[in-house]
Amino acid sequence: MDLTASHATAIERSRRPIGPGASNRDHFRFDLLAEDEQTWARRGRLHTARGSIETPAFMPVGTQATVKTLLPGEVRSTGAEIILANTYHLMLRPGADLVREAGGIHRFMGWTGPILTDSGGFQVFSLAAYNKVTEEGVTFASHIDGSRWTMTPESVIDLQLAFGSDIMMQLDHVLGLPAERVAITDATERSSRWLERAIRALDHVQPEDSSAVLFGIQQGGMDPDLRREHAQRLAAMDVAGCAVGGLSVGEPKPVMAAMLEESTPFLPREKPRYLMGVGSPEDLWHGVARGIDMFDCVLPTRAARNAALFTDDGRVQITNASWRQVPGPIDDQCDCRACTQFTAAYIHHLFRSREVLGLRLASEHNLRFLARVMDRIRNAIVGGAFAEASAAFLDGYQAAKGQETVSLPNRPVQAASDRGRR
Amino acid sequence: MDLTASHATAIERSRRPIGPGASNRDHFRFDLLAEDEQTWARRGRLHTARGSIETPAFMPVGTQATVKTLLPGEVRSTGAEIILANTYHLMLRPGADLVREAGGIHRFMGWTGPILTDSGGFQVFSLAAYNKVTEEGVTFASHIDGSRWTMTPESVIDLQLAFGSDIMMQLDHVLGLPAERVAITDATERSSRWLERAIRALDHVQPEDSSAVLFGIQQGGMDPDLRREHAQRLAAMDVAGCAVGGLSVGEPKPVMAAMLEESTPFLPREKPRYLMGVGSPEDLWHGVARGIDMFDCVLPTRAARNAALFTDDGRVQITNASWRQVPGPIDDQCDCRACTQFTAAYIHHLFRSREVLGLRLASEHNLRFLARVMDRIRNAIVGGAFAEASAAFLDGYQAAKGQETVSLPNRPVQAASDRGRR
Repeated sequence: MDLTASHATAIERSRRPIGPGASNRDHFRFDLLAEDEQTWARRGRLHTARGSIETPAFMPVGTQATVKTLLPGEVRSTGAEIILANTYHLMLRPGADLVREAGGIHRFMGWTGPILTDSGGFQVFSLAAYNKVTEEGVTFASHIDGSRWTMTPESVIDLQLAFGSDIMMQLDHVLGLPAERVAITDATERSSRWLERAIRALDHVQPEDSSAVLFGIQQGGMDPDLRREHAQRLAAMDVAGCAVGGLSVGEPKPVMAAMLEESTPFLPREKPRYLMGVGSPEDLWHGVARGIDMFDCVLPTRAARNAALFTDDGRVQITNASWRQVPGPIDDQCDCRACTQFTAAYIHHLFRSREVLGLRLASEHNLRFLARVMDRIRNAIVGGAFAEASAAFLDGYQAAKGQETVSLPNRPVQAASDRGRR
Repeated sequence: MDLTASHATAIERSRRPIGPGASNRDHFRFDLLAEDEQTWARRGRLHTARGSIETPAFMPVGTQATVKTLLPGEVRSTGAEIILANTYHLMLRPGADLVREAGGIHRFMGWTGPILTDSGGFQVFSLAAYNKVTEEGVTFASHIDGSRWTMTPESVIDLQLAFGSDIMMQLDHVLGLPAERVAITDATERSSRWLERAIRALDHVQPEDSSAVLFGIQQGGMDPDLRREHAQRLAAMDVAGCAVGGLSVGEPKPVMAAMLEESTPFLPREKPRYLMGVGSPEDLWHGVARGIDMFDCVLPTRAARNAALFTDDGRVQITNASWRQVPGPIDDQCDCRACTQFTAAYIHHLFRSREVLGLRLASEHNLRFLARVMDRIRNAIVGGAFAEASAAFLDGYQAAKGQETVSLPNRPVQAASDRGRR
């Protein structure tokens, strides 16, 4: 297994001299440390110029150059090793020039670890008004002030290089639901062409001292054939990692699981796989079981600000009267600041009184909860007990009501050797 | 000078046995360490069962059992040694029983230092609706849900004992502006009678293990005679400290200064003096010059949440476009987290993006600024250079526009020995 094959190709093609300790794409490496025998779950380690990340990993989202309510050190203390920032938002405010002049996004916001920046494709189609796609790119109106902007596969590379991102995402064409198959096919194929342009652009414009790498994004809507075809097409591209996009957009959980099962088996085994926008506790187990290595989602911090806290028994609403007099922690298994330094009654009081400190403590708790879930997942994979650990967690965790349950996938015996692998 | 005289009287009267290290009022002591020769400024140290406080001191306000946006450890890190909590708010939410069951306000909110609780008198008259005063007390409707409540001089002692307060405030009759002299006289005299009842109640109900002490409140509106008379009346009462209430309610700064000059000279020299609800940087200097030892105000944290930051040059509005690209700290003299770890451009971005982290950093900055002002004040008094330090600060600091300036008071030569002292 040559884990650095695609990377070596990239280096060769760009013909940059590589010195010892050079701060460039040479730093990026994905080590596959263990694979589960019963499912597609895998345990790995992602190396970047700004540190390594144990996978499977959950990445907190810092949309506007801040993980909402928290300091960088607090985010790190929850166990996070990498965070997200958002090209669309940063481009509009404070602007790429300002971030570059500040010394990049890391220095601007004070996070010293790796940062993955999404391309903004999703936000253009979900937040911006009057978006219009051509083969060249997408034009849209800012959700802040209505100003007109254009994004192209090349411009989002420029933006992410300006930010000093560690992992850049391609611009992709995202569709809402429901969508006709012909529209999905069109968007999916355009995303592939845009990825080719992104790769070419990066080759031309990446400075020697940049260590940023590019991930491609698989789309395909809820169509199994398109998912499979696009995964295979992405697998053939010279990217550092592969993302699965366009899921968790409102479809039932079994559909998301089925789409993943038509995707990850056809992505390169030696590259990290990133399921975009997914981060409920139960979905982390479902995604890992289907071969996902990286996740991101605003859910833990957004839910926290809405007083919804994760516990092993499920989500609880801390504003409920039942918490008013609880003299102990929200979750006595949790080692976060909220649970070790304050009572549930106090946090209930903070939320009832609309105090900002409540938002902070809840955000730390939910991020810590997900980090502990990822710990359990990684340990279970290494210990050969992922299926049992998954069942134990999901039996105890009451997901949001009305969700259909998802079973563990059965990994075909021949899978590790040939199915869709290159 | 016998600094413990009033305390000894209290002990004698209540006939409680005092053991070594007993957690009771014996812990409370005010040491007068230095007095300025030119003004009424004084440097002292207040001892409580939960630690000592260097005076003059500014006390951050934790209205609802949290200094808004901050953790207790962060408030402490700004230099604060004592904070306020609010009887009116805590009584309504979460309720005195709940706080008592939680082990008191200190354990409930996680602040281990001393806490001063105000009586709620001011809030009843400013926040609550349909308030009605009788000789017995005041009835009012909660600003939260309209429920009917009554406060009496005795009940607010019970409440503050339930909270486990270190310094309790008497219930006083607060008037809004403008007020007729007859109404002011009536309210002022009622406040005195209520203080007598509070002292009697405390004697009867204070548990042996309680270390709480009681401060009386001087009122008198903007009437020099009433201020002087009421100060003299308060000076004769058996209280641990004397507060000046009913100022900073909209009057011009020179009027507040004049009222202070008719108040503090008639209060006991050996007891701490607390100017309630005052906390703008310039007013701290003005108050100290007139013999004030303790201040509290929501201003630093409220201004912070409105993007108004204190600097040696005056208040600045961090949302102004001029801050957009500032690559250095808001205030390069400041050692707070906002100024040492983040650029002004980043904090500008946080406020423009309505991110909670901006509120936090700004709150820490403003509290740290006031703590540094108090440091300067204390050092200047000890160094015999208070007047020069005050002039230097006030020359540089641009107060909010339209404020009249206040001169330093001239302390009469005979003042230290006889004027209004007992």
